[in-house]
Amino acid sequence: MKYYTSINDIDNIKTWIEEAKALKENPLNYSELGKDKTIGLLFFNSSLRTRLSTQKAALNLGMNPIVMNVSGDAWGLEFEDGTVMNGNTAEHIKEAAAVVSQYCDVIAVRAFPTLTDKAKDESEQVMKAFMEHASVPIVNMESATGHPLQGLTDALTISEHAKKTKPKVVLSWAPHIKALPHAVANSFTQAMQKMDVEFVIANPEGYNLSPEITGDTPIYHNQEEAFKDADFVYTKNWSSYEDYGKVVNTDPNWMITKDKIGDAKFMHCLPVRRNVVVEDAVLDSDSSIVIEQANNRTYAAQLVLKKILESK
Amino acid sequence: MKYYTSINDIDNIKTWIEEAKALKENPLNYSELGKDKTIGLLFFNSSLRTRLSTQKAALNLGMNPIVMNVSGDAWGLEFEDGTVMNGNTAEHIKEAAAVVSQYCDVIAVRAFPTLTDKAKDESEQVMKAFMEHASVPIVNMESATGHPLQGLTDALTISEHAKKTKPKVVLSWAPHIKALPHAVANSFTQAMQKMDVEFVIANPEGYNLSPEITGDTPIYHNQEEAFKDADFVYTKNWSSYEDYGKVVNTDPNWMITKDKIGDAKFMHCLPVRRNVVVEDAVLDSDSSIVIEQANNRTYAAQLVLKKILESK
Amino acid sequence: MKYYTSINDIDNIKTWIEEAKALKENPLNYSELGKDKTIGLLFFNSSLRTRLSTQKAALNLGMNPIVMNVSGDAWGLEFEDGTVMNGNTAEHIKEAAAVVSQYCDVIAVRAFPTLTDKAKDESEQVMKAFMEHASVPIVNMESATGHPLQGLTDALTISEHAKKTKPKVVLSWAPHIKALPHAVANSFTQAMQKMDVEFVIANPEGYNLSPEITGDTPIYHNQEEAFKDADFVYTKNWSSYEDYGKVVNTDPNWMITKDKIGDAKFMHCLPVRRNVVVEDAVLDSDSSIVIEQANNRTYAAQLVLKKILESK
Repeated sequence: MKYYTSINDIDNIKTWIEEAKALKENPLNYSELGKDKTIGLLFFNSSLRTRLSTQKAALNLGMNPIVMNVSGDAWGLEFEDGTVMNGNTAEHIKEAAAVVSQYCDVIAVRAFPTLTDKAKDESEQVMKAFMEHASVPIVNMESATGHPLQGLTDALTISEHAKKTKPKVVLSWAPHIKALPHAVANSFTQAMQKMDVEFVIANPEGYNLSPEITGDTPIYHNQEEAFKDADFVYTKNWSSYEDYGKVVNTDPNWMITKDKIGDAKFMHCLPVRRNVVVEDAVLDSDSSIVIEQANNRTYAAQLVLKKILESK
Repeated sequence: MKYYTSINDIDNIKTWIEEAKALKENPLNYSELGKDKTIGLLFFNSSLRTRLSTQKAALNLGMNPIVMNVSGDAWGLEFEDGTVMNGNTAEHIKEAAAVVSQYCDVIAVRAFPTLTDKAKDESEQVMKAFMEHASVPIVNMESATGHPLQGLTDALTISEHAKKTKPKVVLSWAPHIKALPHAVANSFTQAMQKMDVEFVIANPEGYNLSPEITGDTPIYHNQEEAFKDADFVYTKNWSSYEDYGKVVNTDPNWMITKDKIGDAKFMHCLPVRRNVVVEDAVLDSDSSIVIEQANNRTYAAQLVLKKILESK
Repeated sequence: MKYYTSINDIDNIKTWIEEAKALKENPLNYSELGKDKTIGLLFFNSSLRTRLSTQKAALNLGMNPIVMNVSGDAWGLEFEDGTVMNGNTAEHIKEAAAVVSQYCDVIAVRAFPTLTDKAKDESEQVMKAFMEHASVPIVNMESATGHPLQGLTDALTISEHAKKTKPKVVLSWAPHIKALPHAVANSFTQAMQKMDVEFVIANPEGYNLSPEITGDTPIYHNQEEAFKDADFVYTKNWSSYEDYGKVVNTDPNWMITKDKIGDAKFMHCLPVRRNVVVEDAVLDSDSSIVIEQANNRTYAAQLVLKKILESK
């Protein structure tokens, strides 16, 4: 495997989940695999879980992680072809990606969307540029439209906590004060579509995700209806896709409460704003599996790195 | 040992100092103890010595350090319970601490006081929150009211340089242009109270430290009197405790000079402003042991980490 | 070798190049040499290649790199002697350098010039201060007037790509919108003067480098004339040395084009502004060896660290 930039790069989610579970049981079983290999973690945006769990995953495999906050530690990169670079960008991705490839055996990149230019965001300019100009494997640590390490984590977590063969999983939008990306919701949707689950999405009108992502997945504008008999309620805010990047609804009635979810397990990728997205009573109860979910980030990343190292 | 957040966590300062000296003699004697263990160093504030010496200590024990500037690398954390998080904080410490616990075997935290809200600072909100919500050992890399790695370092340094059985140690306030925390002065006071030394404090009126810290320790408002027959002069500025966090005195007569200290050894935790806190003639003379003192930061941190690793 | 702060520290460039080539062939041949040794990389300025390649070089030798952005992670350092430090600097280099020496076996420093105070820049205040006050070897990761890791890299790269015994190498100024340092041009000039090449410099009037650096090297103000029969065209912008730190010319006719360089190999230290310094057609052609040149940064750094480790 050379690239892990989308849930589509998972050839068989069932076997991947089994392999991730095996790594979780024995995280140091492949601690020689990455010996003398370096992974460069390039952050164009903030990160806590991804930053730490990907380093931990690399260390478990014996790799040396090198972390860099691109804008703070270096300078602005240019992604457009043919520009006269007399503005704010000091280096073109063509050089940067090729150069970093020579110091790192794997490059992992986090680059959020603009949320103002839909076409640009959907072109996945940054991730694509790294794939095109780097000579080493690329891992997506959350890009404009996807967060596949999170999606794989979520599939693993649901598999661990499922109590019946075809559990009902609901992805529910929840309110937030800021305009947030669609990446987590997109990758979760794509992961669930590959799983043997009953998957539905609940969001207010005007908040449907890209139809290219949702496909045949049922979308409810009535949260209560969607939550009926749910086994897992996966919550996430995202900004409008139709009125791109806008916050057109902050209705607190969409906040997740203990009453609403009943016996369902509560999931969220974190960070989560308490009493805005979800009430304390949910997060502080046994219904919440967000901490275990975050723990699985390590094993999702470790599985991806293991597959990359093994195919080199 | 699960927590090292205060000088009170030292059960026997005499044996700790002996153990630290042994580590200093053979820093790599336990280089397998931390194998495959990760320490997360979380900085809410700037750091030079603590940042480097704690990494060095961890490396000496074979641990993998992961360093993170919390606000720059991630985002604002919320510490209040029950808040509606629609402001500047994006993640609650409840989640953050629990999550980081899963990627790190030990968490070390630096978080300075507000110096505006005495009650909040004295509640040690950040350190306590990590202790409550993290599932792994916590090390204090300087909190609102204490800097116990520094205090342990200072005790070790005094023990190394003492030329008689019960040396006289003076903690002297000195002027500074900024409002500084009480943490170093507090932990030094607590450490000296545990040592077999004659310990007194010298500070201007209005600058007494918290009486809960100073206890029975004599406080002089006359520096000259306090310095009489001193073997060690430990200097540090702090802002007023009574008029909390205010700079009510910048009297240059309190600056430490060669004349004042005579044959006493000069100590300071660093960074130190030359010719404001202490004159060049002191720092550049043999009286100063500040560099050796900084060196001991490594062995204090290493001893703490060793004790934590051994009790897991 | 205790210091690598200038091209003058290279005793024999021919043997150094051979040793660097050998390291490039077998980068892990000395992976035990730096075991349990720490290198502190201190950045006063941004860095991408230097940051990553020096870490990679250290890892190849088995060293532990500790990276620090001095101003962001810690605070302003004072370099003047005898100052009353009641301004923006919180720690004097005397303490900082001595202290860091105790946590690191080697210290590498990046500190750019002011470009406003020629005398101060030429005094190499920061690098000199580290050399004076640190007790461990110092490596220059680009200082006010030199970038000797880059110069060594460039010599290696030219040696690898030379097709005749005494190739013609041109250092050509090119336009840029910002005032840039002279460090790279200086070190390249010094490196070429040690090599068995025909070396000339091309720059507009008013852009001659320091005569102490250029010495007997021919300087052309006519780019076309200088480029005649060139085998290598090394391009770099620098601000005026005479009218110190000023941008007195941005003539686009000095931009490097495919037409101009013909069959010559194109080199640049990167980052490079496309279509300002050099047109796309050059960088995207086989004439450009900038990526391979950047790759050699690792082996130049590794050779320097190896020599330092071996002489301790």
